[in-house]
Amino acid sequence: MSRVLLTGASGFVGKHAVRHLIARGYDVHCLTRRGGKIPGAHCHQVDLLTEADALAEMVAVIKPQSLLHLAWTVESGAFWTSRANLDWLAASVPLYRAFVDAGGRRMVIAGTCAEYAWSAAHASQPLHELSSALLPATLYGQAKKSQFDILSAAAALDGVALASGRIFFLYGPDERSGRVVSDVVVNLLHGRLVETTEGTQSRDFMHVDDVAGAFAALLASDVTGAVNIATGIDQPLSQLLAEIGAQIGRPDLLQFGARPMAANDPPRLAASVARLRDEVGFVPKFDLQTGLADTIGWWRRELKLDQKR
Amino acid sequence: MSRVLLTGASGFVGKHAVRHLIARGYDVHCLTRRGGKIPGAHCHQVDLLTEADALAEMVAVIKPQSLLHLAWTVESGAFWTSRANLDWLAASVPLYRAFVDAGGRRMVIAGTCAEYAWSAAHASQPLHELSSALLPATLYGQAKKSQFDILSAAAALDGVALASGRIFFLYGPDERSGRVVSDVVVNLLHGRLVETTEGTQSRDFMHVDDVAGAFAALLASDVTGAVNIATGIDQPLSQLLAEIGAQIGRPDLLQFGARPMAANDPPRLAASVARLRDEVGFVPKFDLQTGLADTIGWWRRELKLDQKR
Repeated sequence: MSRVLLTGASGFVGKHAVRHLIARGYDVHCLTRRGGKIPGAHCHQVDLLTEADALAEMVAVIKPQSLLHLAWTVESGAFWTSRANLDWLAASVPLYRAFVDAGGRRMVIAGTCAEYAWSAAHASQPLHELSSALLPATLYGQAKKSQFDILSAAAALDGVALASGRIFFLYGPDERSGRVVSDVVVNLLHGRLVETTEGTQSRDFMHVDDVAGAFAALLASDVTGAVNIATGIDQPLSQLLAEIGAQIGRPDLLQFGARPMAANDPPRLAASVARLRDEVGFVPKFDLQTGLADTIGWWRRELKLDQKR
Repeated sequence: MSRVLLTGASGFVGKHAVRHLIARGYDVHCLTRRGGKIPGAHCHQVDLLTEADALAEMVAVIKPQSLLHLAWTVESGAFWTSRANLDWLAASVPLYRAFVDAGGRRMVIAGTCAEYAWSAAHASQPLHELSSALLPATLYGQAKKSQFDILSAAAALDGVALASGRIFFLYGPDERSGRVVSDVVVNLLHGRLVETTEGTQSRDFMHVDDVAGAFAALLASDVTGAVNIATGIDQPLSQLLAEIGAQIGRPDLLQFGARPMAANDPPRLAASVARLRDEVGFVPKFDLQTGLADTIGWWRRELKLDQKR
């Protein structure tokens, strides 16, 4: 049984990743800041940002063959510009070194579509891992790109097979507030008006369970380099919101055009999924309709709302 | 009097930088791992690689307006591929954050010509900071590029005026062994044969005192972004070595072609110095002839060799 080290196991994607890794037969060892228990996995308490020495000792004992590194700053909204992005970039170095020193040879990190150049000239076509220009417009995107750049250069010397899953947009049950799908679902379920932009910006949204499944599949594969984690289907945000409105039965609460588009919001962010589909061999389980139904159902139970409301 | 924080003060460039900063009227505070004293400057003992908390407290007390960050791994030869490059990239984060938190707003870091794409297609013309492609071929070059990328992105948000001095090739008194000029000078002074390549590769070599002077001038300017630190004049390595042979009076000891060229050694690495000259306003003091004479004279004194040998 292959031993995998997982960071970010208590996060949005990480919670689902634990399950997918266990299902694939991995012996899962989670590094968590607060400790605690995760069914079917081992938990090791360590703060990746401040405890480099303890981390190295811990990883030397665990001796994982592979590493799925999902931990990062996640402050809602603020994460685009948070200085914590610098700290997480820095923290990836002792983590990488501890892993390599312990004999690890397969590593997957979480990248982002924000690593790509977002100007309309670059992003009108689906973004491709090997041919699309990289030019992060945000500190978050730059930190993720720098993590990929430096670890790729080191991995080539160390004989580590490194891959980066570039996450596009995601949604699903148990998403924190301040994110588009969770906020709209909760507001509509409560019968509150939702003011949005025109929603013409086209995006590729993937259910979090599929995002986690894609990472587990990527880890289990021998694919290296960047791989987009997306469905391959993008649609205007207005269409996604309209689907939520229709499923909840309150499309009337959606006020399109009530808010201006952000000036730097690219009109289209679409993903080529050729690498994910053909090289990793991963196909998502949810389409947008079933994925949103799953999410809305979860929120109804969570908020203890009558199904008919 | 403006207060500057200096890292790498005991290094090859740093030793000269202290003097140039003092000459420009800065109140110089050096962070050094081993402590010790530097005439005319304050020394603070801290290990940048392991003591992030102590560093933050120290910088909060010093409250420097500017920061010249020269410290980096310098293992001869090994530094191109040393994993310590990762550690120094990571260490630049707590240093940057401590500096910004203490109110610092002007920062200069040490970059390298190894950040540029070195293929002949890219490097046949002088490399220009704003138009030449960046594509590091080495871990060292990548770590320096990632440092520049991530600190530039953060500096833009923090209102920090960040510049990077991209060092090309350097030489001078007190250079450690394992470097081309120091090794050739010492061997010729001892009357030993020197086996070299054909020496057709063209390089821009700058005297270390000018490199340090350029950094001090860059720090004192308000120029931001990358600035090549070079003379603007490149010549075949064979010409530089022949000049050393001529000055020492032993050209006969140079065996050109005795060693093969490294396969990945680019035929030309030349620098545009328009930014350094026109924007920073810096002009080097030494040309190659006077710079080598200075270096050879230093080695004669160091090795206590008779001038006539």
